[in-house]
Amino acid sequence: MSDKADIGVTGLAVMGRNLARNLARNGQRVAVHNRHRERTDDLVERFGGEGEFVATGSLRELVESLERPRRVVIMVKAGPATDAVIDELVPMLDTGDVLVDAGNANFTDTRRREAALAERGVHFVGTGVSGGEEGALHGPSIMPGGSAAAYRELEPVLRSIAANVDGTPCVTHVGADGAGHFVKMVHNGIEYADMQLIAETYDLLRKVLGREPDEIAETFRGFNTGRLNSYLIEITAEVLGHVDARTSRPFVDVVLDQAEQKGTGRWTVQNALELASPVTGIAEAVFARSISGQPGLREAAADLPGPSEQPRIEDPEGFVADVERALYASKIVAYAQGFDQIQAGSATYGWNIDLGAVATIWRGGCIIRAEFLDRIRAAYDQNPGLASLLADEDFRAALGEAQDSWRRVVATATASGVPVPGISTALAYYDTVRARRLPAALIQGQRDYFGAHTYRRTDVEGIFHTEWAADRSEHEA
Amino acid sequence: MSDKADIGVTGLAVMGRNLARNLARNGQRVAVHNRHRERTDDLVERFGGEGEFVATGSLRELVESLERPRRVVIMVKAGPATDAVIDELVPMLDTGDVLVDAGNANFTDTRRREAALAERGVHFVGTGVSGGEEGALHGPSIMPGGSAAAYRELEPVLRSIAANVDGTPCVTHVGADGAGHFVKMVHNGIEYADMQLIAETYDLLRKVLGREPDEIAETFRGFNTGRLNSYLIEITAEVLGHVDARTSRPFVDVVLDQAEQKGTGRWTVQNALELASPVTGIAEAVFARSISGQPGLREAAADLPGPSEQPRIEDPEGFVADVERALYASKIVAYAQGFDQIQAGSATYGWNIDLGAVATIWRGGCIIRAEFLDRIRAAYDQNPGLASLLADEDFRAALGEAQDSWRRVVATATASGVPVPGISTALAYYDTVRARRLPAALIQGQRDYFGAHTYRRTDVEGIFHTEWAADRSEHEA
Repeated sequence: MSDKADIGVTGLAVMGRNLARNLARNGQRVAVHNRHRERTDDLVERFGGEGEFVATGSLRELVESLERPRRVVIMVKAGPATDAVIDELVPMLDTGDVLVDAGNANFTDTRRREAALAERGVHFVGTGVSGGEEGALHGPSIMPGGSAAAYRELEPVLRSIAANVDGTPCVTHVGADGAGHFVKMVHNGIEYADMQLIAETYDLLRKVLGREPDEIAETFRGFNTGRLNSYLIEITAEVLGHVDARTSRPFVDVVLDQAEQKGTGRWTVQNALELASPVTGIAEAVFARSISGQPGLREAAADLPGPSEQPRIEDPEGFVADVERALYASKIVAYAQGFDQIQAGSATYGWNIDLGAVATIWRGGCIIRAEFLDRIRAAYDQNPGLASLLADEDFRAALGEAQDSWRRVVATATASGVPVPGISTALAYYDTVRARRLPAALIQGQRDYFGAHTYRRTDVEGIFHTEWAADRSEHEA
Repeated sequence: MSDKADIGVTGLAVMGRNLARNLARNGQRVAVHNRHRERTDDLVERFGGEGEFVATGSLRELVESLERPRRVVIMVKAGPATDAVIDELVPMLDTGDVLVDAGNANFTDTRRREAALAERGVHFVGTGVSGGEEGALHGPSIMPGGSAAAYRELEPVLRSIAANVDGTPCVTHVGADGAGHFVKMVHNGIEYADMQLIAETYDLLRKVLGREPDEIAETFRGFNTGRLNSYLIEITAEVLGHVDARTSRPFVDVVLDQAEQKGTGRWTVQNALELASPVTGIAEAVFARSISGQPGLREAAADLPGPSEQPRIEDPEGFVADVERALYASKIVAYAQGFDQIQAGSATYGWNIDLGAVATIWRGGCIIRAEFLDRIRAAYDQNPGLASLLADEDFRAALGEAQDSWRRVVATATASGVPVPGISTALAYYDTVRARRLPAALIQGQRDYFGAHTYRRTDVEGIFHTEWAADRSEHEA
């Protein structure tokens, strides 16, 4: 055996470091590199006992330390920093080498990079990695794009470091070029929507029922034993149950209520608009964070009046049960919208993505991991051509059983002055897609009136325009 | 006097033709050009009596026919077609000439073009023009960007052809480079939101009260005599009152209920996401159109169940009054969001846009023209630094007076299974901005838990992280 390393990692901030450790713990001899040498030495010093590391002082040294075909994982900041590393690496690489970008790149950048490197014979694999620091170390959900040939070079090692659910590693070849980063982007968008729905649920229990954070933590622990069982519900209970040491107040009450964001939620919605894929839940979640982060606006609006009278809740436990159903139904809608976007992206960019496989690899490792993903997988297993998750028999039954509760929750929130943009947009989506007739017909009429934009008819094929300013005769356009 | 023309127009589809006629009717000697000569000849033949036209057969002839500094209006399709015309024209122009793009360009293209032409000494003025065919002919709302020097060359002629309200022409120099097309984009976004709100109002009166289109037309005619008085309400009544000649059924019932869109609404939301400016009303409107245009999804979801029982409306006229208030309140929110986006764009791109002036030029000529814009102008006149229209005294009073009705309408729609995404997102925005505490604090806690994204506190300055996986101690990040 040579003393060359099996795989290289450059960029040793916490995500890169933990990924390198995960690789080493799983039997890979890992060459590591960081722009600032101290991080490399620190990694080897602190975690060298976990496996075999080869510390290198430059990208050239990193490349020279690797077995061929070389496999280099880049874990640096998305954007220009990633391009800089790629530009420096590429001249050192040979045909058949594999470059893996495991950062949060925009999938359009990944498509561009993959095409450019393919011309030089170098495989470029943009890979979504979800699960945060802990996931990177103990087993993330991994979403690689790029060519099938490149995936073959990576598959065994990726399977060894990925999360594992019921014997199935949370990794699959998502599709060509940017498919992996695209799916990771939508994953994050769904995460925004899910977190917003949970936040609204907490807000309702707090403001409508007047419960304290530790009581609500208990409620979420209860939710977590049922169909809502998920990592996000679990940590919600942990955060709500946490008491601030400095003030002895509930932690959630001392945190500034201005939610931040790093951009993948925004990208998801911008792309969905491009695809005409209606991700209303993600959009409301992204905007809710933006509003929270505008203290000037909030101060100016702080004395706007609330409802003249508050509704009385006769049966608090009944309300909690209603809220659980509303959360579950809204979650179905949010995920249905996200999977629709993946479907639309797959069709538009030619990726042929297997939606059931995506659900499968999201069951473990990633932030939105949940039992729920098993149900989504089952839905696509049963009918790979499903037009929407809402049309799946089990989800339809759950929605039907939940909808009266869902309506009561939105009505109660509305009457109480508690904003539930995520829950109510999910219900509006539900009522929109099931409507036999939509007032979109009126909008088409308005558009034809002011802009001669034409319309179609329900009874005759063709494109029509009415002479609104003249005799109102209709003619084919 | 020379026999040169005062101004040129290239691109003689209906918008360009009507703009050329408007110019000629207002005393300009107008050189006209079209890629296909027949359109040029047709214009002169049919409308030559309205003023002085100079028919030209090529862009070179067009340029040579013009008085200096030359002013050329381009009215061709946005995108590559516009670039092609610019590229052909520029070598023929001299320092100080003015090129006006009156099409629906994306403002980022306008910024790029303005910068490129400025280097060659040619003024480039991207100009929003709203009002459709009729507006272009009889007086549109005109939103020019570009340099102040270029605007001085155009101001008298633009004032002569613009719509006029109470002696004030609907044109102002919006700001540098792409400011004009930016403001036109947001205008269109607001138009989407306004149309969606009207469509939901119609849908409620139809489905909750069971009224017929001609009765609802009458209701809108009533609305139009009050504070909702506007072009869009006026044409809504016309469309709803129209009977289809082919079937003798209400026109709105024979139109296919799949709303189309041309892209400016989508651009508005994509840009708002970039600016972190929460335009939830526009986003819901754009997505509502997308959903309506997905027959496969709608078919798959058509048999999802609706509410188990329909609420009884005891007082139909009271409900109509509630709906009027909900529509008005939602409209205030939609416009507040749009004006906030203009403010954010102005700050980000350095345009120093006068929001009161924007309201002023939207009072006439454009699709969203309305008495309402006078009230917005008054709000900014009174306080140019207004943080939000919601903070204006008059609007605050209107919202306070409307809000109980608004809540009843959302609750009733929700209970009835009638989707009102626009009205309910407006109310959610209202309740969000006025909330003393938002559950965004929980989201910050979740983010810190799974991703070490840190948070701020309400009581101490600094950036903090809690060691969730360890002893839960807090330290400054």
